[in-house]
Amino acid sequence: MHGARVRTPATRSVFGIDPPGQPAPPWTTREWFGIGDALQLADLRGKVVVLHAFQMLCPACVHHGLPQAQRIHATFAASGVAVIGLHTVFEHHTAMTPVSLQAFLHEYRIAFPVGVDAPSADASNPIPVTMQAYGMQGTPSLMLIDRNGHLRQHAFGALEDLALGAAIATLIAEGD
Amino acid sequence: MHGARVRTPATRSVFGIDPPGQPAPPWTTREWFGIGDALQLADLRGKVVVLHAFQMLCPACVHHGLPQAQRIHATFAASGVAVIGLHTVFEHHTAMTPVSLQAFLHEYRIAFPVGVDAPSADASNPIPVTMQAYGMQGTPSLMLIDRNGHLRQHAFGALEDLALGAAIATLIAEGD
Amino acid sequence: MHGARVRTPATRSVFGIDPPGQPAPPWTTREWFGIGDALQLADLRGKVVVLHAFQMLCPACVHHGLPQAQRIHATFAASGVAVIGLHTVFEHHTAMTPVSLQAFLHEYRIAFPVGVDAPSADASNPIPVTMQAYGMQGTPSLMLIDRNGHLRQHAFGALEDLALGAAIATLIAEGD
Amino acid sequence: MHGARVRTPATRSVFGIDPPGQPAPPWTTREWFGIGDALQLADLRGKVVVLHAFQMLCPACVHHGLPQAQRIHATFAASGVAVIGLHTVFEHHTAMTPVSLQAFLHEYRIAFPVGVDAPSADASNPIPVTMQAYGMQGTPSLMLIDRNGHLRQHAFGALEDLALGAAIATLIAEGD
Repeated sequence: MHGARVRTPATRSVFGIDPPGQPAPPWTTREWFGIGDALQLADLRGKVVVLHAFQMLCPACVHHGLPQAQRIHATFAASGVAVIGLHTVFEHHTAMTPVSLQAFLHEYRIAFPVGVDAPSADASNPIPVTMQAYGMQGTPSLMLIDRNGHLRQHAFGALEDLALGAAIATLIAEGD
Repeated sequence: MHGARVRTPATRSVFGIDPPGQPAPPWTTREWFGIGDALQLADLRGKVVVLHAFQMLCPACVHHGLPQAQRIHATFAASGVAVIGLHTVFEHHTAMTPVSLQAFLHEYRIAFPVGVDAPSADASNPIPVTMQAYGMQGTPSLMLIDRNGHLRQHAFGALEDLALGAAIATLIAEGD
Repeated sequence: MHGARVRTPATRSVFGIDPPGQPAPPWTTREWFGIGDALQLADLRGKVVVLHAFQMLCPACVHHGLPQAQRIHATFAASGVAVIGLHTVFEHHTAMTPVSLQAFLHEYRIAFPVGVDAPSADASNPIPVTMQAYGMQGTPSLMLIDRNGHLRQHAFGALEDLALGAAIATLIAEGD
Repeated sequence: MHGARVRTPATRSVFGIDPPGQPAPPWTTREWFGIGDALQLADLRGKVVVLHAFQMLCPACVHHGLPQAQRIHATFAASGVAVIGLHTVFEHHTAMTPVSLQAFLHEYRIAFPVGVDAPSADASNPIPVTMQAYGMQGTPSLMLIDRNGHLRQHAFGALEDLALGAAIATLIAEGD
């Protein structure tokens, strides 16, 4: 954190939440499971959005991130929160195809919509488009986006349920 | 829930939180551990209070309730939340004395203040005074009290971290 | 278990172990990971063999069976026990290809050899050949085979570590 | 392990089991719970004995050791194994009295007999008699004693179920 940026109290992080800054980048996806049509972030304006980026063969996603995303969906769906999965394949591309993902989602009873992040147009870049746009470091990653479409938390790795529940509730309590 | 009580939107429970009603009863305690002086609920006005009622030989308290209370203390102490333990002995009174409790709190590294609920003045009633005043059904019980001293959640048994974190954050977000 | 079969004390099961009966069926596999050449059961004569049948998209395998097989490998490899994985795909065949399996084994750091059960010659039968030969009911399944190649335990679903450790040690203690 | 002791292959440890050496020391206890009369080690000749030494306010005993002892009892009682608890209080003596222990055993549903280790005759020594005789380092400690009364494993701290199940089964398989 070099430089002369002044941090005022208004920018203080609460339960990992940042103050509103830039709008969250739009999503670029190839196909969706668990929902009829493609879903855009803009379609969810007015809802708090929990974006869970994962790979189906990532052990930390399977053992920790996805079960947590399922719990978030079960706990907060009635409170205007949309949990969205994003399959951000950046390795083993031939192993984690949409055909394999579909069976995975069925076997793990994933209850929220999952989109497939679009492959990079640059064949030499294994990182898919939305993952690049958000600057994600790996999987699992979790993004909290407020009702106005601003990215408020960007986390990589395991998160504690207590603090995460608090962060989501704080965004809910902000109102529109 | 029989009868004619009309439920208006204002009474809707969010993450288990009730709307403000009556003030939470004061505490009647015999002694305290982890703090110099006796602590009254009134001393904590302005803070969100998490009151965790337990017995040191209650397996559900030891395996679930107290570790959760420790996590709440670690996560929310910096946000103006006071976690308070209350040793509400209603059985095995000769087994769970203050001497035994003191060793228990030391061995389990309990980091928040713990008060001993005062025995009932009626020798035939095994339920201690504060436990009676709150109408607790057993241990573990968890009470959330808002900054103005109103009881907002009364739960008996195991609670999920996600919803509990959300409930605490909602009370924090209410302000004074 | 109808019929006139007489059970003598000699057939009594100990920790789920059956007395020696018929030789375990040979394996029919397509390819192997984690080992140079194809492995036959006959190659392991003289060793106690733990055969763990799984599918890479079976949640109970990923959450319980495979971690247990890894623990068995770590605990018993020095005592002449061979842990062998068998990928018995009987559903979602296009989702669980050898290419996907290879990435799965890499990501989950599977430390023992894994063979791919050969598809049924009968295109209308989704059950692979070795799975049929053993009469397995599903995944995860665990087979214990003694030093002489006899099938001594056939279990479907979750097993407790204590009893399983006892069963394996009992076969080790039998000697040749 | 200084000195000139030569270790021959016969002394090799298997799953933590030592070869037979000296007889295990007798027990010196004050009272018993879960059984009518005082129990001596000599009374159990012919059985494999699992001696679990614990303190009721020791977190590692409550969270790990005692649940494991309960599982051992459930898994091996039918195979001639006697699980015995020993309350070896070496700290907080006034907090862990027999009255408190009795309530603890009731609340945690301990299903095997538990003896209270006799206090040291030397008032300046907090270590009880049997704990001294076995040279235990702390709690939880687990001792495996074979059918002939020889101490075969002496472990301090957490043990894995797989290896422990294997050790017990190895002693069972030895016969008399």
